[in-house]
Amino acid sequence: MSEVENLFNKLNADLAPGQEKRINVDDIEFKGEILTGDPVDFSHGDVDAFKPVPGALDNFVYGFEEVGGSQAYTVYRGREDILKDVAEKLSNYSHTAIDPFEEIIITPGTQGALFLAVGATVTRGGKVAIVEPDYYANRKLVHFFQGELYPIELDYLNHQNEAGINLETLEDSFKAGVKTFIFSNPNNPSGVVYSEDEITKIAQLVKQYGVNVIVDELYSRQLFDDRKYTHLASLDIVPKENIVTIIGPSKTESLSGFRLGTAYGSKEIINRMEQLQAIVSLRASGYSQIVLKNWFSEPEGWMRGRIQAHQDIRDTLTALFKGAGFEVRTTEAGSYIFPKINNLSIHCDDFVKVLKKQAKVTVTPGTQFGPQFTDCIRLNFSQDKEKAVDAVKRIIKVAGYYKNEK
Amino acid sequence: MSEVENLFNKLNADLAPGQEKRINVDDIEFKGEILTGDPVDFSHGDVDAFKPVPGALDNFVYGFEEVGGSQAYTVYRGREDILKDVAEKLSNYSHTAIDPFEEIIITPGTQGALFLAVGATVTRGGKVAIVEPDYYANRKLVHFFQGELYPIELDYLNHQNEAGINLETLEDSFKAGVKTFIFSNPNNPSGVVYSEDEITKIAQLVKQYGVNVIVDELYSRQLFDDRKYTHLASLDIVPKENIVTIIGPSKTESLSGFRLGTAYGSKEIINRMEQLQAIVSLRASGYSQIVLKNWFSEPEGWMRGRIQAHQDIRDTLTALFKGAGFEVRTTEAGSYIFPKINNLSIHCDDFVKVLKKQAKVTVTPGTQFGPQFTDCIRLNFSQDKEKAVDAVKRIIKVAGYYKNEK
Repeated sequence: MSEVENLFNKLNADLAPGQEKRINVDDIEFKGEILTGDPVDFSHGDVDAFKPVPGALDNFVYGFEEVGGSQAYTVYRGREDILKDVAEKLSNYSHTAIDPFEEIIITPGTQGALFLAVGATVTRGGKVAIVEPDYYANRKLVHFFQGELYPIELDYLNHQNEAGINLETLEDSFKAGVKTFIFSNPNNPSGVVYSEDEITKIAQLVKQYGVNVIVDELYSRQLFDDRKYTHLASLDIVPKENIVTIIGPSKTESLSGFRLGTAYGSKEIINRMEQLQAIVSLRASGYSQIVLKNWFSEPEGWMRGRIQAHQDIRDTLTALFKGAGFEVRTTEAGSYIFPKINNLSIHCDDFVKVLKKQAKVTVTPGTQFGPQFTDCIRLNFSQDKEKAVDAVKRIIKVAGYYKNEK
Repeated sequence: MSEVENLFNKLNADLAPGQEKRINVDDIEFKGEILTGDPVDFSHGDVDAFKPVPGALDNFVYGFEEVGGSQAYTVYRGREDILKDVAEKLSNYSHTAIDPFEEIIITPGTQGALFLAVGATVTRGGKVAIVEPDYYANRKLVHFFQGELYPIELDYLNHQNEAGINLETLEDSFKAGVKTFIFSNPNNPSGVVYSEDEITKIAQLVKQYGVNVIVDELYSRQLFDDRKYTHLASLDIVPKENIVTIIGPSKTESLSGFRLGTAYGSKEIINRMEQLQAIVSLRASGYSQIVLKNWFSEPEGWMRGRIQAHQDIRDTLTALFKGAGFEVRTTEAGSYIFPKINNLSIHCDDFVKVLKKQAKVTVTPGTQFGPQFTDCIRLNFSQDKEKAVDAVKRIIKVAGYYKNEK
């Protein structure tokens, strides 16, 4: 196998969220019935059920028709007036000073920001700590840049009021030479929020060992039960040159179709990210960039309504899973739920295929978030409630067909 | 200097097209006058002067409003019906069979396609041939993936009816172990088209030595003087698994603000490109993808009119440069002109800063296209003609201030 084939085998995205249309189910031996019902795709949020922020399209059209050429072609890090607007809003939101011309970049989605941030900090053989479970791309990015992976356990099922990160393993990894730490808060896929105490301790360790930290706060606006959230950058413990925060309007705000994200923090890292963006895709779509003006400028009450609606769906689905004996921690923020199925007789990679065929339901296998999560599935519950409830009942029924004999 | 800093020093994009707003001119000693006139940005085409393909925005709006969620979230390589439509149109255009489900991918701009194609073929230490001069990102991409660069001379100033590639050096590089060859046709920045004979010989060499070839045909629709154009893939000489062709609607069609490109060819390489896209930016903007339906479906006569208008500007600007003693080959396709300034007393990197300050004109320095082009500048002449003519007169005047004494 050539080096390039070997590298890409580690990236295998065939079971990644959004790729399910390309799944082959020919190799599965099916048990039980094929159920009827509306297909539901839990691999991502349904932006028909939860519509994009009002006014987004109008602003895009304005950018195309009225602003024109200067909107199509912006500096690679983004158009200046938009950077200024976004930097100010994010400063207020995260209680962090952001220089709009040096410390922030607009990217094609937060995925784009993550790629650039990892590419700007990790080279071959560099040691990188990631959390397990955590966003599937973190692990793949480290593979792609040929870094060495140090997994940190997040014991999310056995904690309350804190995420459950193993801070000892984190410190050990720093002692062993880890120079970059990547994590999402709220955690994807478990939906848990790191406590102020955890974030403070992470910050202290990062500072002590001179590590670069990349924190993905994509879901931090959608907090349930009035939970307290601590922005790592706001603590002013980590030196500014060592931190990059990533956030964007693709999830809670349903603006994913415009491919917009931002990263802010270290001037040096942001500058390298721009150099890299120059050869990766030049810039986020020029016309899309203007849609960021709608972000953090939503109509009065819009965000509150969205949070309430999601909290309601969360409560219903969590009760269904718990009632059926699945292990699950109640989602604290965002719209992911990550149930563990006890006594499942098949690997979750196959269970996902089974669900697609027998339940008309698309979910993401736990193994995308860490190799050990072979009996977990992730659902994005930003869906039409009625259809989602029915689909979860089908998941539970089909899981029953594939239980180990006791 | 750390490894990552060293790597990014090679990527320096400060003088790359589009970045001129971030240029610092404090270190230049100016000579002569500061001229008046309308600012002109020749670093890219002016999509206010040459508007996007009609109907593009309408289709975007349709995608957002009518198609909705399934348009926002597509498979990473692009939505199936759009892939099918684009594959059919590109098959007809380039006389090449393209399987819509296996052999084509939609990317964020052709820059995105180039990045993915190089990332899917080049690993550390891999030997890569590139042409000089050629698109500035080709060289930077090889640096980023830590390949070894084999420059191939294009003696464009001293040839007629062929581009002027040095085929002996190309074969020598293949003998020396080059496994990837990247080039643009029409050539960026010189605007020359490779002859059928040159393309045939390139194809034969690529086949003989088992090399992967990435051909960037971005500007191939805008051919002047009814020039013949040969698509490398159409010759059926290079085995399909070894070729990727890149093309998109950002230039001639003025759709750059949507960030759309495509790559087609080798199933294996396209598949790796999709795996990579999954961690780079997930997908081209979902709503933007539908705008590809407007591509190669322009209104009757639209393309002919666009070519005529550009040919007219080309003729006027070329005559001005030649009349002032600049060396320049007449552009055969696309909208770049790459004049060489004789007896320039300063480096073109500084001359570019001088032009910005004294002539209110933005151009790209020749060194972006190869380190030896220290007395060349590149202009994209897809501009308002009157303003462009006046701006070129200012360039000529300012160049006069910085001539060597004879």
